[in-house]
Amino acid sequence: MNDHLFGDRFVRAVYDCCVAAHIDTMEIGYKNSDEKFSPAKNGPWKFCHEEDLRRVVGDNDTPLKLSCMADAGKSNWKKDIWPKKDSVLDVIRVAFYHYQLEEALDMIRDAKEKGYEVWGNMMAVTDTEEKDIDRCLAGLAESPADTIAIVDSYGTLLPEWTAYLTKKYVAVAAPAGKTVGIHAHNNQQLAFANSIEAVRNGAMTVDASLGGLGRGAGNCPMELLLGFLKNPKLDIRPVFECLERHFHILQNQMEWGPFPEFMITGQANKHPRAAIAAREGIERGNYAEFYDSVFGDKSNV
Amino acid sequence: MNDHLFGDRFVRAVYDCCVAAHIDTMEIGYKNSDEKFSPAKNGPWKFCHEEDLRRVVGDNDTPLKLSCMADAGKSNWKKDIWPKKDSVLDVIRVAFYHYQLEEALDMIRDAKEKGYEVWGNMMAVTDTEEKDIDRCLAGLAESPADTIAIVDSYGTLLPEWTAYLTKKYVAVAAPAGKTVGIHAHNNQQLAFANSIEAVRNGAMTVDASLGGLGRGAGNCPMELLLGFLKNPKLDIRPVFECLERHFHILQNQMEWGPFPEFMITGQANKHPRAAIAAREGIERGNYAEFYDSVFGDKSNV
Repeated sequence: MNDHLFGDRFVRAVYDCCVAAHIDTMEIGYKNSDEKFSPAKNGPWKFCHEEDLRRVVGDNDTPLKLSCMADAGKSNWKKDIWPKKDSVLDVIRVAFYHYQLEEALDMIRDAKEKGYEVWGNMMAVTDTEEKDIDRCLAGLAESPADTIAIVDSYGTLLPEWTAYLTKKYVAVAAPAGKTVGIHAHNNQQLAFANSIEAVRNGAMTVDASLGGLGRGAGNCPMELLLGFLKNPKLDIRPVFECLERHFHILQNQMEWGPFPEFMITGQANKHPRAAIAAREGIERGNYAEFYDSVFGDKSNV
Repeated sequence: MNDHLFGDRFVRAVYDCCVAAHIDTMEIGYKNSDEKFSPAKNGPWKFCHEEDLRRVVGDNDTPLKLSCMADAGKSNWKKDIWPKKDSVLDVIRVAFYHYQLEEALDMIRDAKEKGYEVWGNMMAVTDTEEKDIDRCLAGLAESPADTIAIVDSYGTLLPEWTAYLTKKYVAVAAPAGKTVGIHAHNNQQLAFANSIEAVRNGAMTVDASLGGLGRGAGNCPMELLLGFLKNPKLDIRPVFECLERHFHILQNQMEWGPFPEFMITGQANKHPRAAIAAREGIERGNYAEFYDSVFGDKSNV
């Protein structure tokens, strides 16, 4: 949304909020290659260099775990992910498409050997054939990953589908001693509902963001998730404090949420890139025309 | 949101959209008493006088059914609801709180005798004790109502709760030859998810509005519902056309949607009136303070 150009004070405010709310883990950014992506065009949270992290969180002397996302094909993981003993990070989450499974498994093994908690996140599950999901799950089950995540990149999942996938993932993950997570997008205003459905079916970890902040339609809002979990360990109030102090200005700088363009790509089981382009272009708000461009113009049929 | 002051052209646009989308029924407004509510302060859709309806929809020479909501305690139903043969309306929906059951049953019988399709909508189901829900269901089952609706006035329902209630309502309604409907509010971004859950459990009618338009957090967005139903009879494109032509200006005039204040009253199982007041007052956006006012200030505990 903003090329990872969040200011240090904002990142620190979200970090403080996560600590105060007793959230388990904060994903602080991406571990992508600064050779493949321009450091001039992208903010520090695209790369999460150790000095940038420590400038904001110090040695993170709190129970909050810090995670980074590393994409297969986009990160220089051998070099950029340091041994855990030298990093303030605790968790490495490996994101990949099914056809990148081999590199992802290499990344998972590498991160585990370096001392991290590790996740395997196969993206775009709704656009992946069953045999490829099964192949990835089998690979992840044999890998040293701690958690396997259901990733609804396109915001296409419906609750019934989420329940089916959660059972499928748990059936493979549990015997291997791994847990299942859910990463939902809000294209159809179902990120929270799908997260609930995953939890009901055995998922142990849910991704959420303050105010649902996230590219395109955004993600599961933390303030809804905490209200649902009613876990006495968790405190929802710091989330509302952080939202009121730091998100009003953000909402003036950028937009996210389930706008019709994102609903349409979600319904179509498509990547939101066309919707993002439409929201940013002069065609913004021309919903019917955008609908035709995604689903095909049937107005003359 | 606007004291029912929608302009005729806007109402006609929504009507045309419903016809083009092949939606079953359009609720065009309320049948409330113009003795209890000021016609000077409220627009025509608060009262739905026959001449106002016909000015916009003529004789409604389409398959679209038109409905009106009549509130127990707020409508002069004996006088204001005309015999069906004299009205362009097809459906009367009777809204009531559990303690108004007796008047509601009188209203239902009256509307049925006048020739209408009739609904019984017991409001605030999440704030109604089980014995009172059962009492109302038993009364509605014996009444001539055609449909009994689950009404989540506070936006508090979670999908699992919705499933439970739907099964409960269907168990009473089906043997009596009646169907079940769902009226969801979007405080927790669950209006669509709860509607899906109700349909999965036997609800036959879902309330939705274009763009989720509705007081406070709004309702289930029609554009999401139609995308889910994939009913070949229904056409989603006119909804996007109506949204782009007529709703952008509306969004500049008023606000609706799952803002944090509405999430908080939804989580608290409370009527949204405090949240509406907070959004309209100078305390707008002070989420943590509003949270304290609803849940009690625990910051010093």
